[in-house]
Amino acid sequence: MKVTSSDLEGMEKRYRARFVNSLSGYKSANLVGTVNGDEQTNLAIVSSAFHVGADPALLGMIFRPASVPRHSLENILQTGSFTVNQVHSQMVEQAHQTSARYERAESEFSAVGLTPEYSNKVMAPYVKESRLKMGLTLASHQTIDLNQTVLVIGRIIEVFVAEEAVQADGYIDIGSLEAVSITGLDSYHAGERISRFSYAKTSRPVRSLTVSGSESDEAS
Amino acid sequence: MKVTSSDLEGMEKRYRARFVNSLSGYKSANLVGTVNGDEQTNLAIVSSAFHVGADPALLGMIFRPASVPRHSLENILQTGSFTVNQVHSQMVEQAHQTSARYERAESEFSAVGLTPEYSNKVMAPYVKESRLKMGLTLASHQTIDLNQTVLVIGRIIEVFVAEEAVQADGYIDIGSLEAVSITGLDSYHAGERISRFSYAKTSRPVRSLTVSGSESDEAS
Repeated sequence: MKVTSSDLEGMEKRYRARFVNSLSGYKSANLVGTVNGDEQTNLAIVSSAFHVGADPALLGMIFRPASVPRHSLENILQTGSFTVNQVHSQMVEQAHQTSARYERAESEFSAVGLTPEYSNKVMAPYVKESRLKMGLTLASHQTIDLNQTVLVIGRIIEVFVAEEAVQADGYIDIGSLEAVSITGLDSYHAGERISRFSYAKTSRPVRSLTVSGSESDEAS
Repeated sequence: MKVTSSDLEGMEKRYRARFVNSLSGYKSANLVGTVNGDEQTNLAIVSSAFHVGADPALLGMIFRPASVPRHSLENILQTGSFTVNQVHSQMVEQAHQTSARYERAESEFSAVGLTPEYSNKVMAPYVKESRLKMGLTLASHQTIDLNQTVLVIGRIIEVFVAEEAVQADGYIDIGSLEAVSITGLDSYHAGERISRFSYAKTSRPVRSLTVSGSESDEAS
């Protein structure tokens, strides 16, 4: 089926939100931890985190100013600090529940039953239950003129990850951590590996790698 | 294990690229189709597409200016037009192979064995084999000062999707299209649904939805 611009514009608002949010495919499921100047913690599920660069290590996120995670955005702008905690399959219900409209004075940590945890480098709380988490300092923020969303870019200043998941070549096997993804607004998925592929060259077909990064026998 | 800023800075360059690219979790796998003023087509695998907004329907992407998809970036800036074509599990090898350093004059379509397809609305070529594809016009572009990457935001002006995948409430079941995700730089994954959840409310626990969007009996 073909959907045109005017079809998109004519869609009922919530139908359009579900449809267009589905177009961007599988999205990383993360909980963003923040705190305000009064030590009031906040936790919000975010599906908009994306890689911006490796050196320096930068992660971007899009915030709708009028949405639930606006407490998160306000806290990030106030403190310059936030954490990004990957959601795994044993915490998806708690993670999704953070999207309910809790009052500012109520911490989503206690409301949904997740545990704040602190490092001495980052003011914002981590999620103890997460198996891959990072602490960030605010590197830049700007309003996107096209729709008034806010692009936040953070610099990754520390990472906590189960050592077994880090392969010899630097690749992190997040499948082994049972990390999940989101499609649309509300669907959660586990990942099932198809293959790792070698660096592509014009002179040869794609080769499979073992998960640990070496080329596998059957593909060479 | 804990990885600090100085650990990140001290990593060997390719190790760091694999490590930091893994931190952003599951990423949507898409082929970006473009054409230049001389009708030379280009196709590039991109894992950085992200949702920016539903109304207007906006999709963002990050380009490293010095990387292979620079032909794509140049074409987008030249023509103001591009397509985003979701990769499914039967085309992952061809999709990955587009990341090889083909000469500008060589089209990745013919090099990897995918078929260009055109609509009368968008100058850029679609990938016939893809099951969810969209045509976009360039809405904005800017260099990110932090690392000189380029943020491109496109406006979605048409969508082609298998009708069976579109649920009654607007959600697109991309799992039924066998869409894939990427982790790190080179690992491809199918998705396995855990659950769809209802709109979260502070007054009740999370409820499961059927894929088509109604609340399922066992969860209500």
